[in-house]
Amino acid sequence: MNVLKLKSCSIYFEDDRFTNLNAYLSNSQYTSITIICDTLTYKHCLPLVLKRIKNLSKAHIIKLPNGEKSKSIDVVQNIFAQLIKTQQSKKMLIINLGGGTVCDIGGFAASVYKRGVDYINIPTTLLAMVDAAIGGKTGVNFLGLKNIIGTIYQPKCIIINTNFLNTLPQLEIYSGLAEMYKTQIIGFKKMQPINLTNKTLFQQSVYNTVKFKVGIVLKDEFEQHERKILNFGHTIGHAIEGYYSQINTQILHGEAVVIGMICATWLSYHRQLLSHNDFEKIISTIKNNFKLTLVSKQYFSALYLLMQNDKKNSFKLPSFILLKAIGLPIIQVEVSKMEIIKSLTYYNSLCK
Amino acid sequence: MNVLKLKSCSIYFEDDRFTNLNAYLSNSQYTSITIICDTLTYKHCLPLVLKRIKNLSKAHIIKLPNGEKSKSIDVVQNIFAQLIKTQQSKKMLIINLGGGTVCDIGGFAASVYKRGVDYINIPTTLLAMVDAAIGGKTGVNFLGLKNIIGTIYQPKCIIINTNFLNTLPQLEIYSGLAEMYKTQIIGFKKMQPINLTNKTLFQQSVYNTVKFKVGIVLKDEFEQHERKILNFGHTIGHAIEGYYSQINTQILHGEAVVIGMICATWLSYHRQLLSHNDFEKIISTIKNNFKLTLVSKQYFSALYLLMQNDKKNSFKLPSFILLKAIGLPIIQVEVSKMEIIKSLTYYNSLCK
Repeated sequence: MNVLKLKSCSIYFEDDRFTNLNAYLSNSQYTSITIICDTLTYKHCLPLVLKRIKNLSKAHIIKLPNGEKSKSIDVVQNIFAQLIKTQQSKKMLIINLGGGTVCDIGGFAASVYKRGVDYINIPTTLLAMVDAAIGGKTGVNFLGLKNIIGTIYQPKCIIINTNFLNTLPQLEIYSGLAEMYKTQIIGFKKMQPINLTNKTLFQQSVYNTVKFKVGIVLKDEFEQHERKILNFGHTIGHAIEGYYSQINTQILHGEAVVIGMICATWLSYHRQLLSHNDFEKIISTIKNNFKLTLVSKQYFSALYLLMQNDKKNSFKLPSFILLKAIGLPIIQVEVSKMEIIKSLTYYNSLCK
Repeated sequence: MNVLKLKSCSIYFEDDRFTNLNAYLSNSQYTSITIICDTLTYKHCLPLVLKRIKNLSKAHIIKLPNGEKSKSIDVVQNIFAQLIKTQQSKKMLIINLGGGTVCDIGGFAASVYKRGVDYINIPTTLLAMVDAAIGGKTGVNFLGLKNIIGTIYQPKCIIINTNFLNTLPQLEIYSGLAEMYKTQIIGFKKMQPINLTNKTLFQQSVYNTVKFKVGIVLKDEFEQHERKILNFGHTIGHAIEGYYSQINTQILHGEAVVIGMICATWLSYHRQLLSHNDFEKIISTIKNNFKLTLVSKQYFSALYLLMQNDKKNSFKLPSFILLKAIGLPIIQVEVSKMEIIKSLTYYNSLCK
């Protein structure tokens, strides 16, 4: 439980000595290093990184505004301008130190600056460790659509150090947990509670989640087929995130995915794909581990419109990942507006 | 002399029947097609294309402003907005109908919209037919730096129909000729005049140039090694284009590359890499086929600064492709400011 390989990307599970990252940087010949962080990781994570990782004393630091709002083309242009101003060459290295937002935006900048430079992800949130930082998907939002502009471009390394989670708010932990339970639903044979109090058991769960994702990405890097299953819960989830952002209502990615997973599970049962037994197991596990909050009926039509525009959509009807059983997802199931509204109504019935 | 393959991209040499393109579109299952053109190709080329290519009756048309100025992030955002507004799915197709600018910007949009959709290049200038449209390099300019933002993302097809050249101004033809002579200098054993009046001979020259480029890109798609030789003449050439654009002075890509090729040839001779005989052959061929215009001495320092920021540059000194002989280039030769200025001074001495 130390390293996983995803093509030319090495995923290291490290402690605060950062042994593998230090070795990688010592053996490489980058002309310069730029660290991209946000206001939170600048304060809580950067000091440790600068102290423990050699070769970073001369690194340029780019500090982004905090939160999903910074995943914009304007912010990316600002990164380009700083890279140009400091004359960063094609042989530079970008290190993304942060959650999914920093990894997505920094990875996108790396993938298009000078037609692509090397980058490393150091995820600092649980969500980024088990999902966003892994697999090379980069992206920014545009006109309210999440990740509508982006690339698939693998980092050179991903450094996973769960000690960064010590400074993370509890809500952010739950956001990552949603993706870990998603992995159980689509990839494992049974649902198991994730132990948050035993560090060794928890790290093993993180490792298992990452390992599952790596296996999927290796089979289908450009999301032609298998990789689509990772979008379980995300058709509705992304629409909710997009819409809540338009109406300036805060919601975490994990909260939105939880709603999406419940709806997709209900749709699977409603379509008679999923047994009542598996349906109950999934719903009760999610209910036991997450606080559910109502989605206003007034939003349903707007959410449907956003789903039609989801980039995962090949055709005009929203496309879902549904389930034939726990651990047995099926991709590209088109679902009607009426069914989607019924699934959201079912979700709301659980919010008591 | 009908088709070349570049990985999954087919390069078809067509006449006005567009037999291969018609077959490709009939056999594919795109949910929609968007044609990107500029004001000139909208007028001179689009009518023929719409008339002769089936499946395009419902195509969305995006018309860009004409010229290099439109290769900006603002224009790309405008393309994204139109694709979103018309709800283009991940299974859409973009067709770029135009010169290098349209192919570069349309290819970039295709490579990042929904993390990449399929696209086809139909180059309408000689420069685009023999160079810009081939090889998957996409890009936009930013802060005066040419193609500083971009990707390497191959089109599905490239359609080369030299009949489009009938409406092209003579100066634009010379711009393409510069790249064709460049191919002779770096890739063929000897320099030969290109016949512009015999259609069959001319088409054969176009085919030979494309075939050479395809061979290079196949060996080294991501420009780690061999592909760099295609940048012969471009270190100084790109700096001139960038600077002239900053000071609002018109210059065609080919004119800038001609200056760059003469300077690089002189540098090769000056460094005693190239024989006097080969040096003379190259210089006289270029002089016989192109009109040379003075580069003001006052620009030299600004040009050098831009070269330091060239994206081909791995290190701080500008990097050049030089020659050991006709057809024998060497890559990544660092050249000092003093030598670059001397080479530009030599170029100016030819402008009599």
